[in-house]
Amino acid sequence: MNVNEAFLGLNNYYSPKIIGEVNDQYIKVVKIKGQEVPWHNHEMEDELFYIVEGSLLMDIENQESLVMQKGDLYVVRKGINHRVSSKEECSIMLIESKTTEHTGKVKSQITKSIDQQKY
Amino acid sequence: MNVNEAFLGLNNYYSPKIIGEVNDQYIKVVKIKGQEVPWHNHEMEDELFYIVEGSLLMDIENQESLVMQKGDLYVVRKGINHRVSSKEECSIMLIESKTTEHTGKVKSQITKSIDQQKY
Repeated sequence: MNVNEAFLGLNNYYSPKIIGEVNDQYIKVVKIKGQEVPWHNHEMEDELFYIVEGSLLMDIENQESLVMQKGDLYVVRKGINHRVSSKEECSIMLIESKTTEHTGKVKSQITKSIDQQKY
Repeated sequence: MNVNEAFLGLNNYYSPKIIGEVNDQYIKVVKIKGQEVPWHNHEMEDELFYIVEGSLLMDIENQESLVMQKGDLYVVRKGINHRVSSKEECSIMLIESKTTEHTGKVKSQITKSIDQQKY
């Protein structure tokens, strides 16, 4: 499958969709635009962000924020509070454990269940 | 880190380098050119291929070969015999279990240990 084309099937921001799996990890695509992701962490799981298109502001608790550009890859370690935002549309590929909850233990209006993340 | 820039540090074909980890998986970059990868499989582990630049011929036992292009993603399932080749230089990002052996149980002149895969 082509990852760039997978983004064409996304109709909503902040709504990750599972496009595959490798071992015990899901591969997901998500588009975001704006600042609706709450601060959250995944207590037991790392989360990989890879920027396919656009630019992402990655805020990480007690660290300097990162501006991620196309081709940039960053892994948020388990337990680390983070949030992401973008002024313009940003297309992201995620790799995360199948057990990872979308916004950790924080429930917000953007929170999606795994069922809602089926492509 | 920028994945495109990670390829600039690769001096040899067929020599994967670990650029990060997410949960129990390594993220690797590798460049190949030619047909030196032997048929092999990873008995217990899936292996993700993502084409960053160039074109890759993915041969899979008992299936039609795939021509993968930039942005294409394919997961070789555990136990499936496969080999990859390319006429021109191809830059690949891999996601695979930390336990995955480079060329499975097949040892060839391109086989690299995990120590040799340190960036």
